[in-house]
Amino acid sequence: MKKAVILAAGKGTRMKSSHPKVVHKVCGKEMVNHVIDASDKAGVDETIVVLGHGIEEVKSILGKDVKTVVQKEQLGTGHAVMMADEYIGDEDTVVVLCGDTPLIVSETLVKFFDYHDCGGYAVTVLTTKVDNPTGYGRVIRDQTGNLLKIVEQKDANEEEKAVNEINSGIYCFNGKYLKESLKKIDNKNAQGEYYLPDSIEIIRMSGGKAGAFLGASIEELMGVNSRIQLSDAEKIMRRRINELHMVNGVTIIDTDSTYIDSDIEIGSDTIIFPGCMISKGSKIGSGCKIGPYASIENSVIGNDTSVKKSEIIDAVVGDETTVGPFAYLRPNANIGNNCKIGDFVEVKNAIFGDGSKASHLSYIGDAEVGKNVNIGCGVVFVNYDGKNKFKSIVKDNAFLGSNSNLVAPLIIEEDTFIATGSTITEDVPNGCLAIARERQVLKAGWVEKKRKRDEEK
Amino acid sequence: MKKAVILAAGKGTRMKSSHPKVVHKVCGKEMVNHVIDASDKAGVDETIVVLGHGIEEVKSILGKDVKTVVQKEQLGTGHAVMMADEYIGDEDTVVVLCGDTPLIVSETLVKFFDYHDCGGYAVTVLTTKVDNPTGYGRVIRDQTGNLLKIVEQKDANEEEKAVNEINSGIYCFNGKYLKESLKKIDNKNAQGEYYLPDSIEIIRMSGGKAGAFLGASIEELMGVNSRIQLSDAEKIMRRRINELHMVNGVTIIDTDSTYIDSDIEIGSDTIIFPGCMISKGSKIGSGCKIGPYASIENSVIGNDTSVKKSEIIDAVVGDETTVGPFAYLRPNANIGNNCKIGDFVEVKNAIFGDGSKASHLSYIGDAEVGKNVNIGCGVVFVNYDGKNKFKSIVKDNAFLGSNSNLVAPLIIEEDTFIATGSTITEDVPNGCLAIARERQVLKAGWVEKKRKRDEEK
Amino acid sequence: MKKAVILAAGKGTRMKSSHPKVVHKVCGKEMVNHVIDASDKAGVDETIVVLGHGIEEVKSILGKDVKTVVQKEQLGTGHAVMMADEYIGDEDTVVVLCGDTPLIVSETLVKFFDYHDCGGYAVTVLTTKVDNPTGYGRVIRDQTGNLLKIVEQKDANEEEKAVNEINSGIYCFNGKYLKESLKKIDNKNAQGEYYLPDSIEIIRMSGGKAGAFLGASIEELMGVNSRIQLSDAEKIMRRRINELHMVNGVTIIDTDSTYIDSDIEIGSDTIIFPGCMISKGSKIGSGCKIGPYASIENSVIGNDTSVKKSEIIDAVVGDETTVGPFAYLRPNANIGNNCKIGDFVEVKNAIFGDGSKASHLSYIGDAEVGKNVNIGCGVVFVNYDGKNKFKSIVKDNAFLGSNSNLVAPLIIEEDTFIATGSTITEDVPNGCLAIARERQVLKAGWVEKKRKRDEEK
Repeated sequence: MKKAVILAAGKGTRMKSSHPKVVHKVCGKEMVNHVIDASDKAGVDETIVVLGHGIEEVKSILGKDVKTVVQKEQLGTGHAVMMADEYIGDEDTVVVLCGDTPLIVSETLVKFFDYHDCGGYAVTVLTTKVDNPTGYGRVIRDQTGNLLKIVEQKDANEEEKAVNEINSGIYCFNGKYLKESLKKIDNKNAQGEYYLPDSIEIIRMSGGKAGAFLGASIEELMGVNSRIQLSDAEKIMRRRINELHMVNGVTIIDTDSTYIDSDIEIGSDTIIFPGCMISKGSKIGSGCKIGPYASIENSVIGNDTSVKKSEIIDAVVGDETTVGPFAYLRPNANIGNNCKIGDFVEVKNAIFGDGSKASHLSYIGDAEVGKNVNIGCGVVFVNYDGKNKFKSIVKDNAFLGSNSNLVAPLIIEEDTFIATGSTITEDVPNGCLAIARERQVLKAGWVEKKRKRDEEK
Repeated sequence: MKKAVILAAGKGTRMKSSHPKVVHKVCGKEMVNHVIDASDKAGVDETIVVLGHGIEEVKSILGKDVKTVVQKEQLGTGHAVMMADEYIGDEDTVVVLCGDTPLIVSETLVKFFDYHDCGGYAVTVLTTKVDNPTGYGRVIRDQTGNLLKIVEQKDANEEEKAVNEINSGIYCFNGKYLKESLKKIDNKNAQGEYYLPDSIEIIRMSGGKAGAFLGASIEELMGVNSRIQLSDAEKIMRRRINELHMVNGVTIIDTDSTYIDSDIEIGSDTIIFPGCMISKGSKIGSGCKIGPYASIENSVIGNDTSVKKSEIIDAVVGDETTVGPFAYLRPNANIGNNCKIGDFVEVKNAIFGDGSKASHLSYIGDAEVGKNVNIGCGVVFVNYDGKNKFKSIVKDNAFLGSNSNLVAPLIIEEDTFIATGSTITEDVPNGCLAIARERQVLKAGWVEKKRKRDEEK
Repeated sequence: MKKAVILAAGKGTRMKSSHPKVVHKVCGKEMVNHVIDASDKAGVDETIVVLGHGIEEVKSILGKDVKTVVQKEQLGTGHAVMMADEYIGDEDTVVVLCGDTPLIVSETLVKFFDYHDCGGYAVTVLTTKVDNPTGYGRVIRDQTGNLLKIVEQKDANEEEKAVNEINSGIYCFNGKYLKESLKKIDNKNAQGEYYLPDSIEIIRMSGGKAGAFLGASIEELMGVNSRIQLSDAEKIMRRRINELHMVNGVTIIDTDSTYIDSDIEIGSDTIIFPGCMISKGSKIGSGCKIGPYASIENSVIGNDTSVKKSEIIDAVVGDETTVGPFAYLRPNANIGNNCKIGDFVEVKNAIFGDGSKASHLSYIGDAEVGKNVNIGCGVVFVNYDGKNKFKSIVKDNAFLGSNSNLVAPLIIEEDTFIATGSTITEDVPNGCLAIARERQVLKAGWVEKKRKRDEEK
């Protein structure tokens, strides 16, 4: 089996956070989950995450299938991998990854695994080339191009310092060789730590073949150790996600100000205006106009629909519907086709039938609204009595006058008309006008009198 | 006459769009219209657009004066220009442009035309220099500096490959020479296409003088073939437009997040905060504070007015007025001077007199509102009865109490007072108080009883 | 004493503004005040600003302790400093700064002052190195490394032109030497101006030691002479401020689109989503989620509070409270802990007790709201009668039904219930239900009749 050991024990002191480093998010997903998803996609069968700081918090954001082990003391990368020993079989291929490199790309890992497998290596290091290798571990190859050793900055001689191929910190191991070498790594160094790169020489000495695969970009190896780096990683991933959508036929007016999580679907010829945040597995159809400044979270939007300066959470919107500006669709809002949800309108836990309109300043909560219903300005679906919530049903072609209140539970039948300003407390049968308001009275000269009263004060 | 032939027949496969490439917009204007506007501004008298894919869609966005011809099969740039033959006279000067290069600058074209005219050239190529010319057609000059030929990458020898002056794809022709050369271009090449650059040698052979004008920047020649390039072009043009406004005395807090169409007027000392979209010929006065996050479309804003987080479409706003945050002015809203349109207020098809205020949560539709009118919170102008829309007139100094409804058609005379919570259905004469609500009744101990009932459930 | 003379007399013609240059803001603070704050922080005891254009406007934005002098005619930098002569004592150390270099960093000034003091210099110039020094005054040092002279571009010989250490325009003087040298500077040059750099040679001639401190970055010396440069300075300072917060443990999703003034406090593990503007000394706790698109001005936000797409001005918000999306907190809104201020809700001049909720479409103005109060949808606190404003008091556990109006002045006692759609004009005692609305009436067949009437029209 192909197994991934993901090092995620670090605290991330420079993050200055009460949360462990690897749960910080990049484009809506925790860093460690980016690494897990990339390795899963590259064909890894089983993932073991090595935990250390914030154990419960990291566990809480991992998928169910992910195994975890605990490294109580942080005694080096070699020590971390040792913790996973119980999960490693002799026949396994083991890839060691860092939980704080969220930009690693699965395509790179696929090629890396192929190189390792096809070359018959016992251990392979993923490498990249940089302009200035100072500070990095240099990759020293033998005359056949195989890996001789990794030399750290402080141990490198002049010739080695000139090498600009560097160690990514990502390794692929044959399980048997890995397990045996881990037993032999010692901590006789300045830091008193067990270093994983030491396993390379041990493996070579015991007859294993060591390889180096020059296949990563420096960008995807970027480790995140501070909030500034977190923001840099976010920017790179943001651009990467947006380019993918553009290649698929989505117009993005300003890629720098468009925030799309990974794993979002958007249809072609949809235009994303600036300032949109599209998150948590949302799906958007084709030919839509989204934004500017729309947030869409865990929601499904149909085709040819427009969403302007609005907030949509856990909701569904049909085709050819317009939402906003300044609308708020909350959980279980289910808006049909050819609808209008206008400005300053909130919909929550409500079915809203095809062709219906709530153009302004309304609240529709806990309701079933039929087709071609007209919801006037200022209408409130009164669903809460301070203790319980109740449901209203408004059937097709009803007309709800402005500033009327529907006190649930209530059924407004088809083809009914609620007079402006009425508070409706009882069901309204088919074809009826319902009215609940006082007649208008005029008091002549009142304004003049008020003015005098005000002046006398 | 000076005529432009604009090549716009391409499909733009990489756009992955159901729309033809040249109708995709950059800063609010279709690419082909950017090219047409630049050439118009440079003094072109007549424009002929060569159509191919999405003929009707492209036609629908072209100006009335623009002529179109159809290239049924895409058989090369030479073939495309042949389609326009009927519109080209011997005495004309013909500039050939690409419909997918929206960044071309009219000042460059002016200089290009001058060079062509003054030099007495039969054909002139617009050129630029690049660091790495690989892939481009190289401009080969003779010893006098005139144009010898354009050599494509695949045909270039080592010396020619080293030339870093490249062909822009933009040409100026003497009409007679162009027409004659087009007859002689053949398609005996690997692609089986008629190439326009082949005309250069034909013209030279027939005695015409060929020139090359090194006058374009590489940026303005950028062709848009994908959504990524579309977004790159948008960014460049955005910056260009914003710099122009800054030079004119407008403060733009964040040029990267400010989206202004071309052809917008903004007065000096106006500050544009981030996230504004100003489009479709809008005109903004001086000393205004616009934004953050204001969208202004096809609207006129006076001087010293502030517009915060609001949406203004097809509307007019006077001087020293404040709009927003979270206001929505829709078509034919006409707001006076010294007004306040506050939060969660919509105005549509309404005159709103000087000094009047609608501070919060109101809808004013189909109305004439006089001066110094106070529109209370939650007021609704009820303009729609499910079938027809009606108009309300509210005269100077009226006071509309909160949550009152004006059921149109209705006239509220001057110096009137509408009591809070009233639904007004009849005209209110001068000086009157109008009231339409029930008296308050108290039911002691009711809350305790309700609590028990709720508990028993 | 350490004194700063800040040159702020210029008009800034290229700004195309009716305001003097130095009052234009960068990240919410006037340029001259950035310079004053940096020099204050570096230990300057007294500041003298030299005014010229827009004297009253500049004065109006200066701190109380800042002294001002007027330079009636702009006759050069030396002339400007002469104006401050009355404030300069022989024993003073005088730093001369430019009011249009808002990016100057106090740490640089501290080192600059140290260098000046410790070296026993009579005059010291702050310098930097640039790749291309063309146009700048070159710093010519003697063999000991001390300053020989500043040579302007036009006066430089080839050897001097090659020097890439340049004059910042920032100087430190011994008071006595400065005063004496100012008397000797003349204006016998092409421009007819008195140049401050001329003082260097005068001081050297009179036995003073001249130094050059290579300690500034080119970035912090950037002078702002146009709106484009203003926008560039804003971008640099924005990034600088955001990086400081990130280092302190704040997550900023998009540093390019996050607008934080200087002097803002933000607690660790707070996440700032894109498009936020945080200004005027606001203070935000830890563990908050701010934004996207929230504006917070002169306000205090507690811990673990979320603020989404809202506007908060001169307000206070407690812990674990949610604000928005689309909420508006205005001056003197004081929101408690565990509250909800939902969509389309405005609060102004009101105390809002712990655990209370106004979930949607409400206006709460001039009020005291107790704990655990439920404010229904569409509720209006009617605080204005056209002449005066009045206050409402709503005590703990009250329930205000939807679309009800509270006509102030009014006291709603504890454990009360206001029926939906009621306009409340009198106090409501403890435990009461208050109701003020008409009963519902049905008119059967009305809709059919209306339809016929509409058709007949």
